[in-house]
Amino acid sequence: MVDSKNLLYEGKAKSVYGTENPDEVIMEFRDDMTAGDGARHETMGKKGYYNSIITSKIFEILEENDIKTQFLELIKPGTLKTLKLDMIPIEVIVRNRATGSLVRTYPFEDGTILNPPIVQMDYKDDDFHDPMLNETIAEALNLATKEELETLKSLALKINQILSKMFEAIDIILVDFKVEFGKDSKGNIILGDEISPDSCRLWDSKTLDMLDKELFRQGHDDEVMNAYEEIYNRLLTDYDKKKWNL
Amino acid sequence: MVDSKNLLYEGKAKSVYGTENPDEVIMEFRDDMTAGDGARHETMGKKGYYNSIITSKIFEILEENDIKTQFLELIKPGTLKTLKLDMIPIEVIVRNRATGSLVRTYPFEDGTILNPPIVQMDYKDDDFHDPMLNETIAEALNLATKEELETLKSLALKINQILSKMFEAIDIILVDFKVEFGKDSKGNIILGDEISPDSCRLWDSKTLDMLDKELFRQGHDDEVMNAYEEIYNRLLTDYDKKKWNL
Repeated sequence: MVDSKNLLYEGKAKSVYGTENPDEVIMEFRDDMTAGDGARHETMGKKGYYNSIITSKIFEILEENDIKTQFLELIKPGTLKTLKLDMIPIEVIVRNRATGSLVRTYPFEDGTILNPPIVQMDYKDDDFHDPMLNETIAEALNLATKEELETLKSLALKINQILSKMFEAIDIILVDFKVEFGKDSKGNIILGDEISPDSCRLWDSKTLDMLDKELFRQGHDDEVMNAYEEIYNRLLTDYDKKKWNL
Repeated sequence: MVDSKNLLYEGKAKSVYGTENPDEVIMEFRDDMTAGDGARHETMGKKGYYNSIITSKIFEILEENDIKTQFLELIKPGTLKTLKLDMIPIEVIVRNRATGSLVRTYPFEDGTILNPPIVQMDYKDDDFHDPMLNETIAEALNLATKEELETLKSLALKINQILSKMFEAIDIILVDFKVEFGKDSKGNIILGDEISPDSCRLWDSKTLDMLDKELFRQGHDDEVMNAYEEIYNRLLTDYDKKKWNL
């Protein structure tokens, strides 16, 4: 089904392929893991397997809560059928606790609860190291209109509400996460890309252990796949596993 | 009048002293010039003289255009009597053309006209190197409320309109500038600090020569005071000079 001749886009951890249907693409989750602007690059066991399934499950839950997503079908672990979107080159980040780059950039104490959450938009541009945007800069760069930026922000906050509750139910704190949006052929703004331990900071509610890519960034490579498996196990129901032949 | 025992605040280029009147302070414009987060520090001829007069003139013009400012009186060149304000630690930057840090941070071509202008807010904090804010981060740091941030933005844009026209009349392009605001004893938001070639990028309309602090940042120290004098000469009328005994 995935024909390398149809490669439309190759990112750091996913590849996107065209299909016969001009409105659909195949999204392949690879096992590649990078950090530090691509300075580190490793291949991680079953990362593509876990992230594709976790993204499928989360996108299904978001759809049930009236958030339109790119997700159509988990063809098999690692491979999704999704809507073809024209991606907006903005990473929308929602932060419920201060950590990571936030505490390096501003005088927040690590772990501080942020209520209301911080919403940050970074320009997805490797050459410029994904600089933080504000509304007027995003407009000047023609990345989105003022109205579209408002939509991105309110969608990200709604997603945060849904996912915070979802993770709370499985004893996980959604510390922060990054989402990306695109437009379908009619110009509707739709959630795309992935939501996985690659794009979220997830802490165990009881131990505050990290269960996400931060383990890799901090060099605990041997713990990464156990953490991803833990998220997978807490998130997937028996019904999900049966449905997807896992 | 300036009693060193009453020193309230010493910045990189100005000192503020208390007076018998609790609502008023004396602002002294020193000849110090710094760049690169304080890495360079020189004393520049009559900088305090020019900047105090240029700020007085510009704040007078803004007052005539219904912008409330901290300015009360030019006591003598170098020394202003001003309202005492509780300063908000935000630098509000308005950019009519892309240059400087903007073109280093984002893919704008140097000199690009920005219409509408970019409005940027930086957190005034030397330890963190004045990082750029967005609304939700400024709120989380308790720097200002959402409504106050809107006020800062709209005041900065109104100031930009007035000053762009003012500078255009003396053949100068207002490329960008930085303003700071504070609250008076009643909580009103009022323009404070200074507006001078230290805080603006000013280009000659015909030659596009720089007439501001950027000359110092780029190491053309010998041209700095000529540029400031040029701004002073184009801006001040004979009437101003008579009024202030210049």
